[in-house]
Amino acid sequence: MKILVNMAFFALTLGCVGCSIANTSNEVAGQTSQKTPAEYVNPFIGTSNFGATHPGAQYPHALTSVAPFNVAFEHKNLNEFEKDAAWNSRVYIHENNFLTGFTHVNLSGVGCPELGVINIMPTAGNLELDPQQYGSTYSNEQASPGYYQTTIDKYGIKAEATSTLRTGLSRYTFPAGQSNIIVNLGLGLTNETGGSLKIVSEQEIEGSRTVGTFCYNPQDVRPVYFVARFSKPAKTFGTFKKMPEFTGVEGEWMQHNNSIKPYPNYQHVMSGDNIGAYMRFDTQGNEQVEVKVGISYVSIENARQNLNTEQPNFAFERIRKDAQDAWNSLLSRIEVQGSEHNKTLLYTGLYHSLIHPSIIQDVNGEYPFMSQQHTAEVGNTQGKNRYSVYSLWDTSRNLHPLLSLVYPEIQSQMVESALSMYQESGWLPKWELLSMETQTMVGDPATAMIADTYLRGVQTFDVELAYAAMQKSADTVENNPIRPENADYLKLGYVPVDDEEPYDGSVSTSLEYYVADFALGQLAKYLDHDQDAQKYLAQAQNYKTLFDETTGMLRPRKRSGDWLTPYDPELGRNFEPAPGYIEGNAWNYRFYVPFDMPGLIALNGGDSAFIAALNATFDSNNFDMGNEPDITYPYLFNYVPGQEPNTARHVKRLIAKYFTNQPAGLPGNDDAGTMSAWLVFSLLGIYPVSPGDMDYALTSTAFDRVTIHLDSKYYAGKTLTITPLNQGQEQPSLNGDPLSKAFISHQQLTQSAKLRLKAQ
Amino acid sequence: MKILVNMAFFALTLGCVGCSIANTSNEVAGQTSQKTPAEYVNPFIGTSNFGATHPGAQYPHALTSVAPFNVAFEHKNLNEFEKDAAWNSRVYIHENNFLTGFTHVNLSGVGCPELGVINIMPTAGNLELDPQQYGSTYSNEQASPGYYQTTIDKYGIKAEATSTLRTGLSRYTFPAGQSNIIVNLGLGLTNETGGSLKIVSEQEIEGSRTVGTFCYNPQDVRPVYFVARFSKPAKTFGTFKKMPEFTGVEGEWMQHNNSIKPYPNYQHVMSGDNIGAYMRFDTQGNEQVEVKVGISYVSIENARQNLNTEQPNFAFERIRKDAQDAWNSLLSRIEVQGSEHNKTLLYTGLYHSLIHPSIIQDVNGEYPFMSQQHTAEVGNTQGKNRYSVYSLWDTSRNLHPLLSLVYPEIQSQMVESALSMYQESGWLPKWELLSMETQTMVGDPATAMIADTYLRGVQTFDVELAYAAMQKSADTVENNPIRPENADYLKLGYVPVDDEEPYDGSVSTSLEYYVADFALGQLAKYLDHDQDAQKYLAQAQNYKTLFDETTGMLRPRKRSGDWLTPYDPELGRNFEPAPGYIEGNAWNYRFYVPFDMPGLIALNGGDSAFIAALNATFDSNNFDMGNEPDITYPYLFNYVPGQEPNTARHVKRLIAKYFTNQPAGLPGNDDAGTMSAWLVFSLLGIYPVSPGDMDYALTSTAFDRVTIHLDSKYYAGKTLTITPLNQGQEQPSLNGDPLSKAFISHQQLTQSAKLRLKAQ
Repeated sequence: MKILVNMAFFALTLGCVGCSIANTSNEVAGQTSQKTPAEYVNPFIGTSNFGATHPGAQYPHALTSVAPFNVAFEHKNLNEFEKDAAWNSRVYIHENNFLTGFTHVNLSGVGCPELGVINIMPTAGNLELDPQQYGSTYSNEQASPGYYQTTIDKYGIKAEATSTLRTGLSRYTFPAGQSNIIVNLGLGLTNETGGSLKIVSEQEIEGSRTVGTFCYNPQDVRPVYFVARFSKPAKTFGTFKKMPEFTGVEGEWMQHNNSIKPYPNYQHVMSGDNIGAYMRFDTQGNEQVEVKVGISYVSIENARQNLNTEQPNFAFERIRKDAQDAWNSLLSRIEVQGSEHNKTLLYTGLYHSLIHPSIIQDVNGEYPFMSQQHTAEVGNTQGKNRYSVYSLWDTSRNLHPLLSLVYPEIQSQMVESALSMYQESGWLPKWELLSMETQTMVGDPATAMIADTYLRGVQTFDVELAYAAMQKSADTVENNPIRPENADYLKLGYVPVDDEEPYDGSVSTSLEYYVADFALGQLAKYLDHDQDAQKYLAQAQNYKTLFDETTGMLRPRKRSGDWLTPYDPELGRNFEPAPGYIEGNAWNYRFYVPFDMPGLIALNGGDSAFIAALNATFDSNNFDMGNEPDITYPYLFNYVPGQEPNTARHVKRLIAKYFTNQPAGLPGNDDAGTMSAWLVFSLLGIYPVSPGDMDYALTSTAFDRVTIHLDSKYYAGKTLTITPLNQGQEQPSLNGDPLSKAFISHQQLTQSAKLRLKAQ
Repeated sequence: MKILVNMAFFALTLGCVGCSIANTSNEVAGQTSQKTPAEYVNPFIGTSNFGATHPGAQYPHALTSVAPFNVAFEHKNLNEFEKDAAWNSRVYIHENNFLTGFTHVNLSGVGCPELGVINIMPTAGNLELDPQQYGSTYSNEQASPGYYQTTIDKYGIKAEATSTLRTGLSRYTFPAGQSNIIVNLGLGLTNETGGSLKIVSEQEIEGSRTVGTFCYNPQDVRPVYFVARFSKPAKTFGTFKKMPEFTGVEGEWMQHNNSIKPYPNYQHVMSGDNIGAYMRFDTQGNEQVEVKVGISYVSIENARQNLNTEQPNFAFERIRKDAQDAWNSLLSRIEVQGSEHNKTLLYTGLYHSLIHPSIIQDVNGEYPFMSQQHTAEVGNTQGKNRYSVYSLWDTSRNLHPLLSLVYPEIQSQMVESALSMYQESGWLPKWELLSMETQTMVGDPATAMIADTYLRGVQTFDVELAYAAMQKSADTVENNPIRPENADYLKLGYVPVDDEEPYDGSVSTSLEYYVADFALGQLAKYLDHDQDAQKYLAQAQNYKTLFDETTGMLRPRKRSGDWLTPYDPELGRNFEPAPGYIEGNAWNYRFYVPFDMPGLIALNGGDSAFIAALNATFDSNNFDMGNEPDITYPYLFNYVPGQEPNTARHVKRLIAKYFTNQPAGLPGNDDAGTMSAWLVFSLLGIYPVSPGDMDYALTSTAFDRVTIHLDSKYYAGKTLTITPLNQGQEQPSLNGDPLSKAFISHQQLTQSAKLRLKAQ
């Protein structure tokens, strides 16, 4: 999913000024061979060029993170981008320079403004409660997995952050004098407003903040709860609130008319649109004060329990090391030898692939029930993880296959979470956020994701339950929130363009349904539901009803059977309305039948006509690296024997162009890790061609050696190794035997495969 | 205390159009002799002319009331007064016609905007959540103690309300179709904002609303908690919130930009400046839906317990009868025979005298601790009442003496509450509101009130504790919040004018200290603390240091001893700055030495000079019936033998001019019952001359017979009767013996006195 593609190349040449990867080991400089995978991660990648990642401290798949927040307020020469001046989904933008705190719930690489709240800012000297006044420039940024630091210029405060699964921890090194820590519930990336808090003691604040309206869906709203605890008792404290504007005579009497009002010593609950609290300390020079924050989506009590359990005391270095260890434990599943640059790209890509879906259950197992009724009902995971933030239109393509391959136990629980959502709400998720279905994007991607997972051998979930859930999505004709176009689709074989011009997404929607039906059909076949398999696979083949021989495009078609006319396949490149297509134009979708490329090639008139069309796509600048529908295109050359070098050429070219060790080093929005997963696969040299299709397309490998440690609970092989072919060799080989085609199956790959690929 | 005296006469001639006393008995019309006292009360008196009373349902001394709220929004031809367009302390204004709901916490007759929140409005038809849109005109108002009803024109809904001590109950008779009940936490008379609520079930909503900034004191803030329960399960429900204005690109995407956003089915906590909830019902024609609301200043849990205890079911008629019975039980302590008009004035005056101070403890005894620290600490009354809303600058003059005489067990608990405040906060209250000292007005009125109470024979509180508390106020030289001018006062004998021009209140403040010191001296004498008595009584005599022979005024004096010059005794009549005087001019204060009128008369040059000055005050229109400093003036003629008929003449004239059976039937702000207490005493024919002085000045009686039932726990007599002298008789008599002076002591009066006074 992409946002603002037309601006996506703007910041590509920016360097990473003033930021660096934090030194996370005691190694001697130069002994790079001893670096752990986490030390290769550059969390600043994706913080420019609309990547929408942030450099803050985060633990893998965590409910919380601590991110620098620099998108509030326009400041000449300081903030280039103001959060409300555009459709902005970023809590942190590399080009910006005005920091107004650190936020404790954040999304990574999503396309809509959301979260970015529970904002905490340290200041020094006189108490200033207006973030536009207390904000500051910052310098000396450093970041590594689970750690972030910067110096807040205005006050000379060094701010560091680390985090656990459900808690954040910040350490502020203050100058001598009066020091302040401000909890601001007004500021937020989210478009929702309103919060409530209470100063429990001179060391603790509790409260909640409303978040939601994700992707401008007005009903996706809920509170997030927090408890913040301070390492030092505040000398004085209070709450504050922005007062409304009184325009009448009252206004003359109000001391705080249309301004921020402090409430010293206020220990009652305080609610409002724009509220907060402050704690003030007398500090010695270089005195450190820490604040730890527990988060929960269930209750303040659970937030407190999360905090007490995950951070029973203040132990910054231990927490930081735990986070680093957790990252290394996951990242080291893929060991590589190769250039420092490629290691940075790989591990940062893997890092970004291991953020969402993220857990939402508290330490006691409680999580908010999935319901459109916005009840406060709570479920309990009974020890398992409950994942949330499913951007499935994006992630079903490659991120979940990556998890299935390398982290099958995690992927299995992600499927189980999706099945719980089905049990709770009656439907599988589409774009689930914090136990709310946001109904963002189109298609039936959960079906594609779940069927694919099972077929890959990740079979530790209730497949009959899953199958019933997928069938419900596939077969429900009316009132089907997953496939709202199902009645037409099942009747006509495609979604007609008639109904929703000019923003109709009929072709895109149809293509997503075909992908899902293919995956479901493959699963049905595997499960010996032969009739079902025939039905779904036949439905998938209906993509042919949309193939227009005249243009070669998958073209919008009316209920009558007539093609949409007039018709411009270029339309939609710049987000203008393009009937038939969602987030793209006809070119971006013309080869989006990944499950039946031979069939599509035949429709296109055979290999050479197809290759000509594929080349034309790249040549006419109709390929978009920054969005999902066409990200398999560079791999499609593999379907035509002899064309494999073009796959390798394009993949290498695209990596070099779009993926760099710079803040702008993502081709646009990371889409909850989908762009990063593309990079990880493409650097390794394999790419999953379609959900439900067990083949990976092969390309060249960027490394001298890749060792993927496989999970023996799921896979026969202990390791998968990829090494470059000897110079001069062209033909990839498996376990020493040359491969006859440019694909390898998942089953082959997971049996201690020794794969040799061309060097990138 | 008065507000807007210069507008106070404006609405005097308005009639009570469209309002009437609700018929609360089954009596046959015309048999007026069977009417209970409550049936004489006209709750509309004081709802015009800035009286600041409201006609809503209230129980005596209750924590809650249910008042129609008609002061929001300017509407041409509908609302004459908009709440923020002036310093407005009224939830209901008779001249206004645009109703936007019923509020569940309200003050009566106070001078600053406060409370008027927990607003509930019934509507019908389509759901409209903007009060400016859903508000309506109304008609057919009726009100009686504990009951209010009106018809909401726009929807044809009959709305009725009644209440208990801590809960309100509303009954809405809906038309057939869709009916709605809206709980709005945005609207409020208070200048504070912010609330939080949660729909607990289809029959219950809980939440809190911040109130405060009383008299524009920014730190007098706290939450009020509520639980609302509906007699019928809502078919659908939701919350709503006014969204902020997004001015950037975001604004184009927000469906609810700068407008009210509904959140259907939302059952999480919702917080914000301007939020609410709605319940929707399918109703038959004339179907009644009831909503009962429990209030607490401690917690939501206590609000629920209050509701469950005081209204275990829905029983509108029983609750209404209980409230009426409670009023009759109190009002009938004074039985009178006389004209219907005078009975209406008397019982309405008594009704208004029995509202504040009001209880603040919950049914479990819990109440918010008195603290300037705004903690959530809770006290427990252990079965007693904890009173709140002490407007002591006003009420110490006559309301508490009235309570001491007729309701000594209530007055005793009011003193005990004040002593608890002293124990909790370190100081006696001055203008206490909801366990917060608002520091409004000047002087040391708690001392005057408590000493007076004890001397009257109400001795069921810990007098040693009280004495220590009063001595602390009187003797603390520095950092004395009760007497901030005490250092100068004790050193010079008066508060010098030097420091705070032009709003210096040095004379007024000095005079209040003299009154308090007199009362404390009298108590000390009674308690045999002879040295203390000498000291405080001598301090009281220092009023003479402010007497200026040249002007005859109690004149502002500098620290040097020089008089303030230039000096205009008329200054201050229209709220312009008048150095030396608070809420008045020199004339309003020139005789405010009620404890030593003989001394003041001597200073003025003897009886005739004094009478000339007193007459000049009335003749030059420098007497203000609407404010406290001079309300004893009409009784001062009694101090000069032979002048007693002028007291009777002025009192009768003032009652006729300012106290009518009309909405404008109070001379201005009721000042928490002080004006009404003046009326009650003045109708009976007695008036307490000064706190600590046990004499009542006598005037004529408005009734054919007055029987005051005395509390035998406190007083020797069972009853006090007042009857008119036979025609032609001039000399008041006690138990058949003519009185030699126009005063009678409290002790005489409470020994089964049979007092005969001239007929009014």
